[in-house]
Amino acid sequence: MTNTSFPHADAPKRAEAVLAQLKAQFGERVSCNESVCKAHSHGEALQVSRMPAAVVFAESTADVSDVLKLCHHHQVPVVAFGAGTSVEGHVTPPEHAISLDLSRMTEVLEVNPADLDCRVQAGLTRQDLNVQLRDTGLFFPVDPGGEATLGGMCATRASGTAAVRYGTMKENVLGLTVVLANGEVIRTGGRVRKSSTGYDLTSLFVGSEGTLGIITEVQLRLHGIPEQLSAAICQFENLHDAVSTAIEIIQMGVPIARVELMDEVQMAASISYSGLTDLQPLTTLFFEFAGAPESVREQVSVTEDIARENNGLRFMWADTADERARLWKARHNAFWAAKAIDPSARVISTDCIVPISRLADLIDGVRQDIAASGLQAAILGHVGDGNFHTLIMTEDSDAGHVRALDLDRKIVARALAMGGSCSGEHGVGLGKLEFLETEHGAGALSVMRALKATLDPLNILNPGKLLPEGPVFKG
Amino acid sequence: MTNTSFPHADAPKRAEAVLAQLKAQFGERVSCNESVCKAHSHGEALQVSRMPAAVVFAESTADVSDVLKLCHHHQVPVVAFGAGTSVEGHVTPPEHAISLDLSRMTEVLEVNPADLDCRVQAGLTRQDLNVQLRDTGLFFPVDPGGEATLGGMCATRASGTAAVRYGTMKENVLGLTVVLANGEVIRTGGRVRKSSTGYDLTSLFVGSEGTLGIITEVQLRLHGIPEQLSAAICQFENLHDAVSTAIEIIQMGVPIARVELMDEVQMAASISYSGLTDLQPLTTLFFEFAGAPESVREQVSVTEDIARENNGLRFMWADTADERARLWKARHNAFWAAKAIDPSARVISTDCIVPISRLADLIDGVRQDIAASGLQAAILGHVGDGNFHTLIMTEDSDAGHVRALDLDRKIVARALAMGGSCSGEHGVGLGKLEFLETEHGAGALSVMRALKATLDPLNILNPGKLLPEGPVFKG
Repeated sequence: MTNTSFPHADAPKRAEAVLAQLKAQFGERVSCNESVCKAHSHGEALQVSRMPAAVVFAESTADVSDVLKLCHHHQVPVVAFGAGTSVEGHVTPPEHAISLDLSRMTEVLEVNPADLDCRVQAGLTRQDLNVQLRDTGLFFPVDPGGEATLGGMCATRASGTAAVRYGTMKENVLGLTVVLANGEVIRTGGRVRKSSTGYDLTSLFVGSEGTLGIITEVQLRLHGIPEQLSAAICQFENLHDAVSTAIEIIQMGVPIARVELMDEVQMAASISYSGLTDLQPLTTLFFEFAGAPESVREQVSVTEDIARENNGLRFMWADTADERARLWKARHNAFWAAKAIDPSARVISTDCIVPISRLADLIDGVRQDIAASGLQAAILGHVGDGNFHTLIMTEDSDAGHVRALDLDRKIVARALAMGGSCSGEHGVGLGKLEFLETEHGAGALSVMRALKATLDPLNILNPGKLLPEGPVFKG
Repeated sequence: MTNTSFPHADAPKRAEAVLAQLKAQFGERVSCNESVCKAHSHGEALQVSRMPAAVVFAESTADVSDVLKLCHHHQVPVVAFGAGTSVEGHVTPPEHAISLDLSRMTEVLEVNPADLDCRVQAGLTRQDLNVQLRDTGLFFPVDPGGEATLGGMCATRASGTAAVRYGTMKENVLGLTVVLANGEVIRTGGRVRKSSTGYDLTSLFVGSEGTLGIITEVQLRLHGIPEQLSAAICQFENLHDAVSTAIEIIQMGVPIARVELMDEVQMAASISYSGLTDLQPLTTLFFEFAGAPESVREQVSVTEDIARENNGLRFMWADTADERARLWKARHNAFWAAKAIDPSARVISTDCIVPISRLADLIDGVRQDIAASGLQAAILGHVGDGNFHTLIMTEDSDAGHVRALDLDRKIVARALAMGGSCSGEHGVGLGKLEFLETEHGAGALSVMRALKATLDPLNILNPGKLLPEGPVFKG
């Protein structure tokens, strides 16, 4: 069984002992201040909030190593904290734990424009990286919407609106610097575009949610800023038609840069919140096309044909940077738009993904579930990947949360029954633990637990996240 | 320390015991016939050849599981065998081992055209898969040249000429069925385009060379056959100019389908072997462009500009399927062309990769090493990835092999010093063991050994491959 060693009976004493040593070593960079601890007690999720024993602000890989050595010695759990944007409880501290804040580690360590790669510290946000890359003609495309750190994006295998074209963190991380449970530092991967030497440790740590090691530096693949960008929207009277349009675009192999869906509930909210007064509260697809001019023209033409055949209403184009920014800002603010419908309500963002051929059926089923729940909910997401979110609006009370989570369970169960995954991009954290065995099977989970036990035998690295308890593969 | 438990002192007795049980269970599908064993004693490499105790022909995942259960019980090592095309000694049996032949497992289990994926048994070759996919308009793009099985391609993280556009096996495997050391069967990954739930076991097994489990089924990502394909070649008086052309094509973000280099030594051999009588023995780039017609036109135009600026001689186009096939056949037959220069010689294909900005410098250095060695060698490869092979021609004698391997060591040392990898696509096997610590560092290797010890504690899965002996991470 995993996760059973915490908390130790003497966990408070252990935390105290480590704290004394941390203070001696890090001085003012250790904080037990209530507001600091409170800011590190949760992410952006419904999941439980818990105060850490202390917060340590790391400024280097060596700092992270030193903290882990001490915590390892005292067997005190550690959770890494970046921007705190997790919606699945990843950064909620285990009991009597140290929250290790990496948000001061924001250096761009190297940029290799000729090789289309760079190395950055884990606390840098993707927005800040892209600002610093501006003069190179390159950018980092993975865009989960929020202001997340690149280390956090690695740890949760993040993706977002641009994954349909550029892939997720899995495809865009070349290598990592990782501090292991005992403070040892390793480098994984490298700078080459491919390699067939050794186990793929980079992919093992990407998506490991701080449970196998703490990522302190990231080697990223960069991409040329496309010569031309065009954005457009197309509205549909029928959600099925919109989904079919997205599916056919992917099936035709159109290298579309983004294709996002917002249903009529979300659109009504966003029209009002983001002032999209020229739009109707109808199901809408947001498109972005990128590339060389001829290629963009061709993509647009194929997409328009597909939309027309699926009863799409007219295309509206956003050709200037300002217009594009306005549209994508509306898309990125979808959560806040939903929240604004009833500011006293709680909005819960769920996540699931299916093979794209099942997407329309899944969404039909989800809408039945929403109707049966009596709750209001908006559907939006990265339909080009078969991935969408349901924003469930519920009373901010225990009873309200239970109703919302019941609905979420029904949605996930439908996705899993269709060969899908319970999380396209939000990760597992605490929120998706209950679905892991159904999704992966007992055998694969037992292997994952064996890997966890091997790399973190004392179970100090973000214990309780990602893996539900259960048997460990023994070989 | 790893790999020290074999051979057991009583290994021959153990092999005998397992053989009796295998024969009882598998009857004629177990062979100790000398020619069968000889065919399974090595791949296509210079590395040591060793006879297996027996060969078992598996026809299903259940067969593989049964064989592993028996071998686990008796602690007899097992090496999986597909098409035997490894050039790094992967399939050379450990001492007193069972060679488990999967080449009869050739079923296409499902094709999902709407989702661009399929599931196949591990013994199917990529060529046979593509024949079976013909009517769907889809294809599987990873093309290592040889007639390899898809299971073997997974196990070695293969790539080849199309990786510059479509990625390697890493990017094109969605999920696996794997039989673990004790015979347990797990499924990894799935059919969705992305997921952020749990450790990425698929990526862990891809490239693990049969040392962590035996892959029996593969879920593959498929791609639409491009509307238009064009192939061209451009010759250069100067190798540096050819390399610069390839580098700039990648840096400009041209989505080229293939860009291959053959130097003048290779061209002289291929002109004679493949009858390319319209070509000069000059350094040559082979291009393939794929996509929608407008996009292809644009790619071609940019590529021609770049080549011209780098002193490329005229472009020669191969627009018919027959002409294209002739060109690519010449590329794929490069090894045999080199071999034909002196049929009594041994040709050793080496492999290395660097960040693309270092490629021209590396090739310069390699040519100095070749000259200093007094051996004849041709350079060719996937220059769009920074990856190339040196075909070293040497006397087929112990002394000749030593000279060739000395040259290979110098080439690899140069690549590693430039932040490269000792194998872009051939894997580690036995041939690259000595370079692993320099490439990955002692820390990363100790983690890999810990993973191996966790998943295969009895060390029966292809022992001695992929990982040099050394310390194991203890956490």
